[in-house]
Amino acid sequence: MNKNHYVAIMAGGVGSRFWPASREAKPKQFIDILGIGKSLLQMTYERFLPLIPAENILIVTNKMYVDLVKMHLPDVKDSQILAEPSRNNTAPCLAYTAFKIQKTNPNAIFIVASSDHLILNENAFLENIAQGLAFAETNDALLTLAITPTSPNIGYGYVQFNRNDANNDGIFKVKSFKEKPNLETARAFVAAGNYLWNAGIFVWSVKSLLKSYKIHAVDIFDILKKGETAYNTEGEQNFIDEHYPRTPNISVDFAIMEKADNVYTLPGTFAWSDLGAWSALYTESEKDDNGNVVVCEHVVLSEVSNCLLHVKNTDKLVVMRGLDDFIVVDDDNALLIYPKSKEQDIKQVTEILKTTGKKIFL
Amino acid sequence: MNKNHYVAIMAGGVGSRFWPASREAKPKQFIDILGIGKSLLQMTYERFLPLIPAENILIVTNKMYVDLVKMHLPDVKDSQILAEPSRNNTAPCLAYTAFKIQKTNPNAIFIVASSDHLILNENAFLENIAQGLAFAETNDALLTLAITPTSPNIGYGYVQFNRNDANNDGIFKVKSFKEKPNLETARAFVAAGNYLWNAGIFVWSVKSLLKSYKIHAVDIFDILKKGETAYNTEGEQNFIDEHYPRTPNISVDFAIMEKADNVYTLPGTFAWSDLGAWSALYTESEKDDNGNVVVCEHVVLSEVSNCLLHVKNTDKLVVMRGLDDFIVVDDDNALLIYPKSKEQDIKQVTEILKTTGKKIFL
Repeated sequence: MNKNHYVAIMAGGVGSRFWPASREAKPKQFIDILGIGKSLLQMTYERFLPLIPAENILIVTNKMYVDLVKMHLPDVKDSQILAEPSRNNTAPCLAYTAFKIQKTNPNAIFIVASSDHLILNENAFLENIAQGLAFAETNDALLTLAITPTSPNIGYGYVQFNRNDANNDGIFKVKSFKEKPNLETARAFVAAGNYLWNAGIFVWSVKSLLKSYKIHAVDIFDILKKGETAYNTEGEQNFIDEHYPRTPNISVDFAIMEKADNVYTLPGTFAWSDLGAWSALYTESEKDDNGNVVVCEHVVLSEVSNCLLHVKNTDKLVVMRGLDDFIVVDDDNALLIYPKSKEQDIKQVTEILKTTGKKIFL
Repeated sequence: MNKNHYVAIMAGGVGSRFWPASREAKPKQFIDILGIGKSLLQMTYERFLPLIPAENILIVTNKMYVDLVKMHLPDVKDSQILAEPSRNNTAPCLAYTAFKIQKTNPNAIFIVASSDHLILNENAFLENIAQGLAFAETNDALLTLAITPTSPNIGYGYVQFNRNDANNDGIFKVKSFKEKPNLETARAFVAAGNYLWNAGIFVWSVKSLLKSYKIHAVDIFDILKKGETAYNTEGEQNFIDEHYPRTPNISVDFAIMEKADNVYTLPGTFAWSDLGAWSALYTESEKDDNGNVVVCEHVVLSEVSNCLLHVKNTDKLVVMRGLDDFIVVDDDNALLIYPKSKEQDIKQVTEILKTTGKKIFL
């Protein structure tokens, strides 16, 4: 393994759309959403172990989740955990990560990966990542690993590439980033053939990235550069606690990727989902003969079809009959029984509940 | 209060039809089925406190439930708990009770009441009971307190009385006991006007009852009479453990009531249900505007109608949408979501589960 290779796993998100399994106090990346005995964060960490030296795997999270990260990843040292004191989106967050890595290793190349996404075909993923690392090593480039769309999904942003501008390895110059489209536009994107799902996976050298900040986001660059003496010392957290909250709240896509002219994309050959909601998990999961996804050990279903059943307590027995197209989630202190087609309304319910005075755990 | 008045609360039943809230290990009488913070047994006990001296309230149960009884009724002394070592139905059980009471008080009158029934209009109930006690005190009679039917229920047995044979207080001589009828017969019973629901509530003197055993069930009488020296001593449980299992397995209805010619009935003026199943609980309970019975503190329902929702963990939040005519029961280690109209099938499911090797809690 190459000691210059790093990965920053982004694990600070709130992920409230998997209510009640995930809450603000325990977001999606910490949930065993697939019922396989591992959280999405643990799966993400293990995915990189064959390619990246364990000590070069960094976890970027919110201060409130540091203890959860340590619990899920006991092999990760305190010095590998970056704790944001405030939610300022990805641009400040990745600048902080780049400065911290640069101080240890100015020749570092680092991957940015979400902790709460589903990735199938892990070997294909690792091959794509390895190709991306090689590209970032030899080019002053910002590379995004994006996904060849399998449907006109309106839940994702898209990356448009110049199809006539490929290098030998099938890496393309990016033409533009597109916000979440409506269905008609999404269909046109898929039909065009040069649009990819933006998966928020990046590969770049700290040199190239920090150079881009200096050009396109100098305010963030200036604030966080001041911490250079503090990074990787006992003073790091104090510096971050004091200065990080003053950085502008902006995504790396807006701050850097849409402005830089050295942005490239590699169309990923693996299956991917951001697992944006229960119905996305349902779509991506293997179904039984009746179209059910059952994450639950002891269960008796009759006349149940196209349902997602997710039960946290694996000793619990579920007896269910006469449901079609439902999401059933049983967590420690909440039970959700909801039509799958109405999932988008759940967020409203939980928002309303947050404002009531009742003793309710969201 | 009259020191000659006793009540035997029958609390040995298995009550598996309220699965998963009730199981063999914790049957219905020990469940807070109405969600009011009290089990049916506790409600039954408290119902008699205004009328019967506390020390005269006996609990008749199976040995396996003695600890549960003590937990639910901490004021009841060990000497008030009768523990059957085997399930031999009500005839042996009530003979044992009668012999035990007789040894303390040969002039005792005692009520027999189930621990797992629902009784509304408690004052009417107590008035009926008081009238029954007065009648049993002055007559050599076996009195059953039965219920004026409000529907042609096919889940109950019926008591037919001679309508022309009432004494001044509206107590009637019983003509016959009828097994659970089909719907047509049940309708005829209700139309006839002299049929009552058999509620298994009896009032009699120990003298009259034991005299009846001597005539109609001498085998039971002989076996349990031998324990007279042991009852209310340290030797009682040993005697019962040794001899009780040899008594025939038969109900008091078959053994005594259908044979004796001094059987009377008082048509009860209170509302009653044996709560035979979830749907019976639903029928008897107050409903919200959408016909839902909600035994659960924190709940958000939309497009939910005619459902019974019963959640044991009162801190748990339930969000439910798009269900009509369902039973939803969430217990510690089981979750039931089942069409109310199919309730009779649940028993088959739980029977099948009992035979599987899986680690399943029924």
